[in-house]
Amino acid sequence: MWELCEDDLRPVSVGAAVLGSGGGGNPYIGHLRVRECLRAGRAVEVILPEELDDDALVAVCGAMGSPVVSYEKLPGGDEEPAALRQLERQLGRTVDAVAPFEMGGGNSMAAMVVAASAGVPLIDGDGMGRAFPELQMTSYLIYGAASAPSALADERGNVLVLSEVVDAGWLERIARAATVAMGGHAGVATTPMRGELCKRVIIPGTLSLARAIGDAILAADRSGVEPSDAVLAVTGGRRHLRGKVVDVERRNTKGFARGSLVLEGSDTDSGRTVRIDFQNENLVLYEDGRPVATVPDLITLLTAERGDPLTTEVVSYGVRADVLILPCHRLLRTPRALEVVGPRAFGLDFDAVLLEDGARPGAGAVR
Amino acid sequence: MWELCEDDLRPVSVGAAVLGSGGGGNPYIGHLRVRECLRAGRAVEVILPEELDDDALVAVCGAMGSPVVSYEKLPGGDEEPAALRQLERQLGRTVDAVAPFEMGGGNSMAAMVVAASAGVPLIDGDGMGRAFPELQMTSYLIYGAASAPSALADERGNVLVLSEVVDAGWLERIARAATVAMGGHAGVATTPMRGELCKRVIIPGTLSLARAIGDAILAADRSGVEPSDAVLAVTGGRRHLRGKVVDVERRNTKGFARGSLVLEGSDTDSGRTVRIDFQNENLVLYEDGRPVATVPDLITLLTAERGDPLTTEVVSYGVRADVLILPCHRLLRTPRALEVVGPRAFGLDFDAVLLEDGARPGAGAVR
Repeated sequence: MWELCEDDLRPVSVGAAVLGSGGGGNPYIGHLRVRECLRAGRAVEVILPEELDDDALVAVCGAMGSPVVSYEKLPGGDEEPAALRQLERQLGRTVDAVAPFEMGGGNSMAAMVVAASAGVPLIDGDGMGRAFPELQMTSYLIYGAASAPSALADERGNVLVLSEVVDAGWLERIARAATVAMGGHAGVATTPMRGELCKRVIIPGTLSLARAIGDAILAADRSGVEPSDAVLAVTGGRRHLRGKVVDVERRNTKGFARGSLVLEGSDTDSGRTVRIDFQNENLVLYEDGRPVATVPDLITLLTAERGDPLTTEVVSYGVRADVLILPCHRLLRTPRALEVVGPRAFGLDFDAVLLEDGARPGAGAVR
Repeated sequence: MWELCEDDLRPVSVGAAVLGSGGGGNPYIGHLRVRECLRAGRAVEVILPEELDDDALVAVCGAMGSPVVSYEKLPGGDEEPAALRQLERQLGRTVDAVAPFEMGGGNSMAAMVVAASAGVPLIDGDGMGRAFPELQMTSYLIYGAASAPSALADERGNVLVLSEVVDAGWLERIARAATVAMGGHAGVATTPMRGELCKRVIIPGTLSLARAIGDAILAADRSGVEPSDAVLAVTGGRRHLRGKVVDVERRNTKGFARGSLVLEGSDTDSGRTVRIDFQNENLVLYEDGRPVATVPDLITLLTAERGDPLTTEVVSYGVRADVLILPCHRLLRTPRALEVVGPRAFGLDFDAVLLEDGARPGAGAVR
């Protein structure tokens, strides 16, 4: 168990934004919200999954909605704690720990705010080891945790409970529609489960991993190491291209930010062109018309100079960026998981193109 | 207190469809569902509002969704009872009676199914004395009943609770979005209130009124009286036009059936043309470009020959119909009510055009 301090926030939010693969919400606002909690004297205790009692009750917390909205409509701050309070009311007891459903600038921080507000530990891990656009895409739900009850809350005071859902896909569908009706952003508390199950299905150590990535980028910035090299040393994977963003097409539809961006290679990569398609998160990297990397592996962009992670909402024409491909966790590489988080789950007509296992130093093993 | 019998169903469903003002759901399917309940030996006891104990707990039940959907996707039948069971779970107790939120072919019947299934009385009355397209448009909510908790259920087994809503408009907005996500049809249990409040805010006697209207139409059919004259003798109001439907424009959008229809006068009305705009229900009757009748008064169509009420889903080119304007209940005529159910509440830029009070024999006084 360790206690999160204010100095952790910058590296965690930078590293979580790298893992966010273009999505995961606005890191800056998340950062401010947690800092405010800490400064108000509320602690965020972090525990490893193996520290959970088998009988502990865990809930998964975060924010739902298109990340674009979080730039235009500031969250009120109590949505996620309110969702957890309602989930606890439904369960008839308080939870013993909370976990994020995803890593990403916004959602890793949102879970911290909930933990601090509820006075329970935050688990070092999450359900994606990255960010994905839909609720059913967590290792928790893929490997058998319950989709209901789940609770949603908005900043006005509307609170919703999904008491029973047919499956995780219906959780996503109904919660998404409600979130859109609520103005595009809602706090979510979901997937109540026992500690015993959580230990088996969580992607462990991803908060520490985010901090290590962030530390590496911030240290690189000071020492003259290439930021993307520093990240790859922590995560494994490879740099696919250094280039310049020459086109961005983005629309906010049905609660998602969808679109694509095109980069032209520079330096040793000049003459090459890649395209990245995204739905909140970067889904597929194409070169010469072929997918060369896909979900569930992480496709993430860093600015070439400083290693700032670029989310799909802020990336813009002319930015010089490195395109990195980082290996997803093994829990996302099983046939069962690929059905839920592989390209076909996003309506694409090809199989996952993943880094070879040799490319991975073992995500989650870092700390 | 009286017990509903199978012979009541035909006149009630016909009369409720007249009060439905073009909406209120599919009367035929509602009829079959209640008949099935009665034949299975379950009774529907009907009580007057004044028979309620002050401390009784009342819930408002019905179906939500575009009525068009109810013609294409048959309800499973357990949606409304499932919604009530979840509402009771939220309240921590069972209800003592249920009331419909609106009169209309489908929703008056849906409340009967819920009453039979829960084994509690059905209150003779409703929240509109007609049908309206949105949940907040009930006298219950207009005059202070609580919008939450409310429960929604679909035929697959998805169950949703709105635990807290900012106001009745948010109840409508969020429940509508969830209903659309659930496939366009959901059972709803809402507006839990004490008997004391229910007695003050319900529009009383509308089930009996529906039966009286239905009886009048069916008797007219046998005796050669004009069906619309028979209806007007019960309800008050007037026949505005006899004519033929010469144009129908209808689209199913955002969970509503919206559109308009045009009738050309025949017989003594030949040379006149009227247009009716609807959103599930008929909202405004125009002649010579001016509104001549509007919500909350009832604009309802009967086939000229047999007096069959025409809902907006089934009305079609060439049908010969009488256009009736029936007076709404006084609870809908107050400034407070007109803010919620007058033309401006539907985005129209003019005030309500209502029948004069003299035109009303007193809706609800019939029985």
